[in-house]
Formats: sequence, structure tokens, C-alpha cells
Amino acid sequence: MHNFSYYNPTKIEFGKEKENNIGQYLQEAGIKKVLLLYGTGSIQKSGLYDKIVASLRKNAIAFEELSGVVSNPLLSKVNEGIQLIRNNDIEAVLAVGGGSVADSAKAIAAGAKYDGDVWDFFINKAQITEALPVFTVMTLSATASEMNGNSVIINDDTKQKYSISSVFVNPVLSVINPELMKTVTPEYLAYSAVDIIAHSIEIYFTASTHPHFNSRIVESIIKTVMETTEILIANPDDYDARAEFAWVAIQALNGLTPAGTEGGSFPNHMIEHSLSALYNVAHGAGLSIVIPAWMKWYKEQNIAQFERFSHEIFGSKDADVGIEKLQNWFAKIGAPVTLADANIPREGIRDLAQNANGLAAMWGMGDIYSVETITEILEKA
Amino acid sequence: MHNFSYYNPTKIEFGKEKENNIGQYLQEAGIKKVLLLYGTGSIQKSGLYDKIVASLRKNAIAFEELSGVVSNPLLSKVNEGIQLIRNNDIEAVLAVGGGSVADSAKAIAAGAKYDGDVWDFFINKAQITEALPVFTVMTLSATASEMNGNSVIINDDTKQKYSISSVFVNPVLSVINPELMKTVTPEYLAYSAVDIIAHSIEIYFTASTHPHFNSRIVESIIKTVMETTEILIANPDDYDARAEFAWVAIQALNGLTPAGTEGGSFPNHMIEHSLSALYNVAHGAGLSIVIPAWMKWYKEQNIAQFERFSHEIFGSKDADVGIEKLQNWFAKIGAPVTLADANIPREGIRDLAQNANGLAAMWGMGDIYSVETITEILEKA
Repeated sequence: MHNFSYYNPTKIEFGKEKENNIGQYLQEAGIKKVLLLYGTGSIQKSGLYDKIVASLRKNAIAFEELSGVVSNPLLSKVNEGIQLIRNNDIEAVLAVGGGSVADSAKAIAAGAKYDGDVWDFFINKAQITEALPVFTVMTLSATASEMNGNSVIINDDTKQKYSISSVFVNPVLSVINPELMKTVTPEYLAYSAVDIIAHSIEIYFTASTHPHFNSRIVESIIKTVMETTEILIANPDDYDARAEFAWVAIQALNGLTPAGTEGGSFPNHMIEHSLSALYNVAHGAGLSIVIPAWMKWYKEQNIAQFERFSHEIFGSKDADVGIEKLQNWFAKIGAPVTLADANIPREGIRDLAQNANGLAAMWGMGDIYSVETITEILEKA
Repeated sequence: MHNFSYYNPTKIEFGKEKENNIGQYLQEAGIKKVLLLYGTGSIQKSGLYDKIVASLRKNAIAFEELSGVVSNPLLSKVNEGIQLIRNNDIEAVLAVGGGSVADSAKAIAAGAKYDGDVWDFFINKAQITEALPVFTVMTLSATASEMNGNSVIINDDTKQKYSISSVFVNPVLSVINPELMKTVTPEYLAYSAVDIIAHSIEIYFTASTHPHFNSRIVESIIKTVMETTEILIANPDDYDARAEFAWVAIQALNGLTPAGTEGGSFPNHMIEHSLSALYNVAHGAGLSIVIPAWMKWYKEQNIAQFERFSHEIFGSKDADVGIEKLQNWFAKIGAPVTLADANIPREGIRDLAQNANGLAAMWGMGDIYSVETITEILEKA
């Protein structure tokens, strides 16, 4: 077991109607004015916007608002938020939406406290040392952004999809009401399930040290995601399934699964980022294409863990069966499993590989994941 | 899934030699003077005391010290600590030892900020609203006190073994170096294993709502505890087993396993507290006596979960087999499984039941766990 530090100070307020307390939570934290950040209007249609505003007013929290955050969130919007904060003496960022909104809120919160260009943090030119407090009310469960310090942003100009990770941008408090997630489309439910499984298996397969307990936790997460996804496809109103799905999404990327592991990496996320950067594929849809291809390419490097996966999740000791069954399950829930499924032409592979290799270099994996290697993996997709 | 709040702001510094950084961690937290609290001298014999003092001196952290905390820690020692803090302008408590030392540190930290009698918190006469920061360096893994807000103290005068639970006394930071736990006797290793299993199964069996994910986590903890305990009995120097044991001990009682459950309680702990209060039995030893007896008495009230337990842990679908195999496993690792094993006479049962019933009333379970019912359970032991 490898030495580690574990620190996750985010408070989770989980359950029905908790969004109505958001004003109170802000007030208890001493916040008087927030930036209310959201996406492209679905929170207005659902009535969530009105509930949030009512709770803010009731607790005398002033706010400015910024909407228009898109999935695969953009740096230009982050910079807009930073300007708004500077011009209005705003003390905190309140993200209402999915992972993209939460990720944007974190970048805004860090950028507002930094004299230079916020993109410096993403290209390792500067380290985050402080940030405004971030609060979230989540309408989608997948990224675990609600309980970690990660933020992934696309630079509109360079098309780079890069990330930061800092406990300074961990949300102070996140509200998770599974009822707010009822309106997620079957398509996005599937992409979310893929994303959660991706978060779970990256280190599980790539770590050189992976304690049994970590494997057990990962398998518990995967079993629960698969079980609850199938329940929700059949019955989107099943509250308990929706709630378990939301809670395991958080556990998959809040620091628990890697604790004590060594040498793990996120190659599937790395390669996928090029798909969503160049083809604007949804992150989960890109992952369901990349994962089976990567697994076929990688399996011999850690065959024992691939056999364990196959056995624990699908009841077979053959590594290939596990890969095939996972790919079939992705297809069954409606996620694309080939580049063709997502209308990405074979001729695009070279550009994707070059883009992904740029990120590989940033993440210190440029040698292992050369343009040639990434091309070889994507050919399998 | 039941509504819940999850908040655990304790930072864990886990791994080899981390105790040498304790002065630095305190210094980074802005602490200039601590109360160094420990037990009955084993940290001096092992050399840990010298390492801690060297690290404090190196980082210019002044300290007063208080030793003599015993297992089943006493209120009189807590009051001694509170006086020391008041007389010496001490800013934080540093616990070096096992759960008893950490629990005492928390009571001292809360009491030092309170004008009345610290016991008021334990008998629900007052609520904790602030506390001095607590830091720990652990030499034993069992109670998870290193990552929760719980403290169990015995009132020397009344013989009541009562507890508090408040996030204000969660350690700010805990150092877990599994190497410091190598010298734990086989006896105490067994008691610790029982304690961790007890923390895991109380809510698992008693909750009216218990999501599948929670069951999977609990089963992951139990499997890992049993696996690593057997490795450590055979080879006390196995670092990885020692480390996994220490980490799952924390997961068993840091707030993760109950999140989203409803209606769970801690009857085995409640009954056990009377054994350690009246007969000074080690907590884990008391639990290994109480648990099989309680399981036999309780199983029909949640037979499906008892069958699940039996199946997941021991590969049988018969609830009785699970109970019997768990009892046999406790005996195999050297834990007592009957009152006679701990030299507690049958005539003592009535007094034990009366003491436990007092705690049951405090915990709002006085009706269910009457003196007669507790007597009936203990008769099975």
C-alpha cells in the first residue's frame, strides 16, 4: 500500500428538497453575494431556477447571474465569469447544473483570485493557492465534480481540453437531490453510467499497486451503477435507484478509490478528451468508444486484474469475455461503441491521436502514449 | 435512500514515516502550543515519543504533556487535560496512541472551550458548538476515532460509559503509519478486528432502509478485515496487510457506511459498554461475546439481510451458518465468545442488563432493549 494523503472537506447535503435550503447554507457560511452560474435554460423550464432564487432571497443572499455554460465547457465563459466577479464584489460561486457547470464554477473561483490568465493553471504554468468558495446544486450525476477538486475546460482558441485538480476548488457544499435528475434523457443516463465506470476502472487496471480493498470498492461501484442504470431505463421514476446512482457517481471520483494505489493513470480519459475536443462528442459517449478499444490493447499488461474484473462483474474468468460483455452492455444501454457509431471517420484518427498525444505529454505519459500507439488503439474502435 | 448530510473534513496522512512530519502539519495549521496526550508509556519504549518531540521542536511547537490515558478512558483524566490547557494557553490537542487517547483528546478539546462540566455533553445536557483543534498520531487501528467525531468516555464515579458525536471534534489531521502498529499484540489485533466488524454490521443488520451499495461496502470491509487479520496473525510484519487493516478500520466508522440508510442503531455497542464499564473487559473482547448472542436473538427481525451476510461472507445462504461461522472465526483469532471466556459470572448478567438499559434509554432504545430483553440476549452468551 502506497503512502497517501486523503482530504475531502466537501459537505454533501443529499436528498429530497434540499435545494430549497441553498440560501441558508450560503448564509451559514457567511456569504452575502454569489455568482449564480448555470447552463442553457433547462433549470428555468424545470422550475429549479425559481426555487434557487426564492431560497437566495429568503436568506438575503444577493446575486449576479451568468448562464450559457455548455457541456464540454469553454474557457471564454470562464473568463466572462471572472470578469463579472471582479466587477461586482462577488464572494462565492453557486453552480446549478451538471458537471460542466460545476467545472466552470471551479475555474472561475480560482481565476477570480489570480492576477494572471486562468489558463495558466491548466497548462501547469501556475499553481492554485486560493479560490473563492464554490457551492453546487447538481442536476446530473456523472463527473463527481460535486465532491472533488477537478475541473476540465476546453480552450476555445487552441481546442485543448485540459484539467486542473486542487482541493482549493473542492465545493464547500454540494446539494444532491436525485429528484432533480429525473429529467435526464436515457441517452445522457447511459453516458453518465459509462463515465462513472470509466472513473472506476482507470486506476483499477493501470495501477502497479492496487490493494484488494480498492478493487472491492471499485467492483461495488460498478455493480451498483449497472444495476441502477438498468432499473432507471425501465423506470425513470425509481427514486432509490436514482439516488444510489448519484451517490456511487460521487464515490467513483472523490479520492476514495485511488487511496493507497500507486502508478495509476487515466489513459481512457486522455484519449477521449480528443474526441470531445475535435468532434464535440459527449464525454461519456467518447468514453464508451475508447474503453473497449483500450482494454483490448492493454489487457496483457495486467492480465490478472482483467481476469478478476471479468469474474467479479460478469462471472467469467476469461479476460476477453469481460471486455466483450462490457462493450455489449454499453451498446445495450444506448452508448456508442465504435467511432462509426459517433460519425467519426477513420481519416480523423490521425488528428485525434495528435491531439491526445499533446495531453499525454502534459500528463507525463507522452512516451507511452505516442501518436502511433494512440492511433493503434483508435483503430480498434 | 434516506436523506443525509455527509461531512468529514479530517485530513489523513497515511504511510511510512509520516509521524516525523507532525510538527510541520501543526505549524502549517498555525498552531504554536499543544497538549501532547498519550497512554501508559509504550510510546516511550517504542521510540515514537522521541520522534514526536523531535518533530515538534524542529518546527518550534511548544508543548505540555499529559500521560496515563488508559483503555476504557476515564473522565478524571479528561478533566486533568482541560485544567492543563486552561493553565497553559494551549491551542490544540495532539493525541499519540490508540482510540482511547484520541477519544480523550476530543473530550478535552470540547471541554476546554466550555464553561460547564464536560460530562454535560455526554448526558445530552449541553451541545458541543466549538472545540480546540485535535491532531492524532495513531498506534492502533480499530475505533476509527482518527477520522470521526466520536468519543467514548467512562465516568469514574458513576461507571457510565457514554459517548459524544460532533464534527467539531473530528481530528483536523490524523497520521496513520501502519509500521507503528506492528507491536500490537495478537490479542489486541483480534479485539480490533472484532471492533471493526462490529462497526460494520450494526447498521447493516438493524437499518430499515439499507441500499445495496452500503451492503457492498460493508461486505468489502468485512472481507478485507478477515483476510488481513489472518495474514497478520501468520506474519505480523506484513506491511500491506497492516496498512489495509488500518484503512478499512477507518472506513468502517467515518460516516460512509451509514450514508443513506435509515433506522439503524448500535445495540451491540450499547450492550458491550456495560461489560467494559463493570468488568473492564477490552471493548473488542466484549463485542465478540455480545455479537453472536445478539445475532441469534435478532436474526428473525431481518432474516433476508442475515442470509445475505451468510452468503457474501461465508458462502452459505443459511442465516444460522453465518452466525456460527462468525462466532467460530472470532474464537479462531483468539477473541472470547462467551461470558465465561471473559470470567464474567452468570450472576452478573442482571447488573450488566441494568447498566446497558441505562445507556439504551440515553440512546432512545430503552423500550426495545429493556432489562429483560438484554438479560435474554446475554443469557445466550
